Amino acid sequence: MMLVIEKIQQIKELSARWKKERKTIGLVPTMGCLHDGHLSLIRKSREECDVTVVSIFVNPTQFGPKEDYTAYPRIFEQDCEDCENDKVDVIFAPSVEEIYPDGFQTSVSVKLLQNHLCGLSRPGHFDGVATIVLKLFNIVSPHKAYFGEKDYQQLQIIKRMVNDMNLDTAIVDMPIVREPDGVAMSSRNKYLNPEDRGSAKILRKIIKEAEHLIINGEIEPETVLSALHKIAKKEKNIVVDYISLCDPDTLEDLDSLEKDVLVAVAVKIGNTRLIDNMVIRR
Amino acid sequence: MMLVIEKIQQIKELSARWKKERKTIGLVPTMGCLHDGHLSLIRKSREECDVTVVSIFVNPTQFGPKEDYTAYPRIFEQDCEDCENDKVDVIFAPSVEEIYPDGFQTSVSVKLLQNHLCGLSRPGHFDGVATIVLKLFNIVSPHKAYFGEKDYQQLQIIKRMVNDMNLDTAIVDMPIVREPDGVAMSSRNKYLNPEDRGSAKILRKIIKEAEHLIINGEIEPETVLSALHKIAKKEKNIVVDYISLCDPDTLEDLDSLEKDVLVAVAVKIGNTRLIDNMVIRR
Repeated sequence: MMLVIEKIQQIKELSARWKKERKTIGLVPTMGCLHDGHLSLIRKSREECDVTVVSIFVNPTQFGPKEDYTAYPRIFEQDCEDCENDKVDVIFAPSVEEIYPDGFQTSVSVKLLQNHLCGLSRPGHFDGVATIVLKLFNIVSPHKAYFGEKDYQQLQIIKRMVNDMNLDTAIVDMPIVREPDGVAMSSRNKYLNPEDRGSAKILRKIIKEAEHLIINGEIEPETVLSALHKIAKKEKNIVVDYISLCDPDTLEDLDSLEKDVLVAVAVKIGNTRLIDNMVIRR
Repeated sequence: MMLVIEKIQQIKELSARWKKERKTIGLVPTMGCLHDGHLSLIRKSREECDVTVVSIFVNPTQFGPKEDYTAYPRIFEQDCEDCENDKVDVIFAPSVEEIYPDGFQTSVSVKLLQNHLCGLSRPGHFDGVATIVLKLFNIVSPHKAYFGEKDYQQLQIIKRMVNDMNLDTAIVDMPIVREPDGVAMSSRNKYLNPEDRGSAKILRKIIKEAEHLIINGEIEPETVLSALHKIAKKEKNIVVDYISLCDPDTLEDLDSLEKDVLVAVAVKIGNTRLIDNMVIRR
């Protein structure tokens, strides 16, 4: 029987009980609106851990003032059904007041990794992410926590935080899950009308072109970037936020593509911001 | 037999073993140069917990660029002797590299409480404090941690952080321990020559005058503050950093003294910065 828990105290007690019983705990932190990407994380946790907790919390502090916090899709009952089908043990679904009570004022910041990619267009976003993830880790005390590689920068930031703050939670990252046409699964794909959904294929197209050029020996970032921006320009329906060829560990722009390369892309289609990435190993 | 441990991994394993044995763990975080104030924390921990860990780490990130990090008194062998005499179980004395390895970049910030008192004259100080304390809590996993009320703002910030970040460590605060002449014990008193040491009595004198005026019914902060500054001016050897009458919970300046009052004072005597405080309950 799957439990739905809203109170911090209650899940803390449950987690303490599991620990006494020597059970390993897997946590899949989500903002709900689950898709196959999330389900791959849940299944991995089910495989590796004795109990699996899925948190569903649309975290207000990781949205900018002009971003889509209120519009973000919430389909709690459908999410519960999906979790139940995948034999999740507990859904932790706290209210905003439960997580951020009056007087709350602490923030966790991973200073350098956020000065790149999405961090530049979404100031404060990764502080919001780091803070809620650390809270969830303190609340659930998971042995392992599962994150998707689609949010590559988020993953790096969380790994860094776990290391820097001496946490014992192992971070497990899972590959991007894609729609049949190659578009990365995202809760935000729900925002797209059929035309915009067609345009979303551009992200993967840009990344595949980067892969093609780099694998064929191009080592000049400028050459690759200009080819990628040329492709992007042909798709009138989108606005590029960034196309970046950077170091997969530091996220700093590369001045030569002879090492491993993270190709990361963010575009806006109407009001919807979509991201995708690929690491090309040399 | 008291252990001295330098490695994070080693104390983590020891802490995990204690937890399995159902032992309660007390942590006394210090920067060394132990005095009777620290010893009162250690004795309280010995009284309340099965095992007591004293951390000794002069934390560079809580010193400003012009502050006394390199000059800060370090008397490790004397500290070890004092701890051994007081039956401490473990001294945790990591190196700076052990705590802040290459690439370290995470910071914890308690945003509002630091915008007062010492936080104003020591920018970044309390981020350094919050970050190291959270790391120590994650490393040692104490049931209880002990702090002195002399660092009143630090104590409030740590309590807030523990609450905000859903930690399970109980914060125990202990009263200021004083020299026979009323001067609050502080490792920095070591810096003072006999003349300066005499001048240090001014902090307590200011606070006692505030207490006297408030207890006798004065409710105007301006009246009390001007009396206190008048006393301070008579002591030529000191420079006042702040004298504050504020709310003991929010640290915001009071506009009337009809509620509980925190009287907090910071002065510089030569290069030495000293603080003291008292909460007057109404």
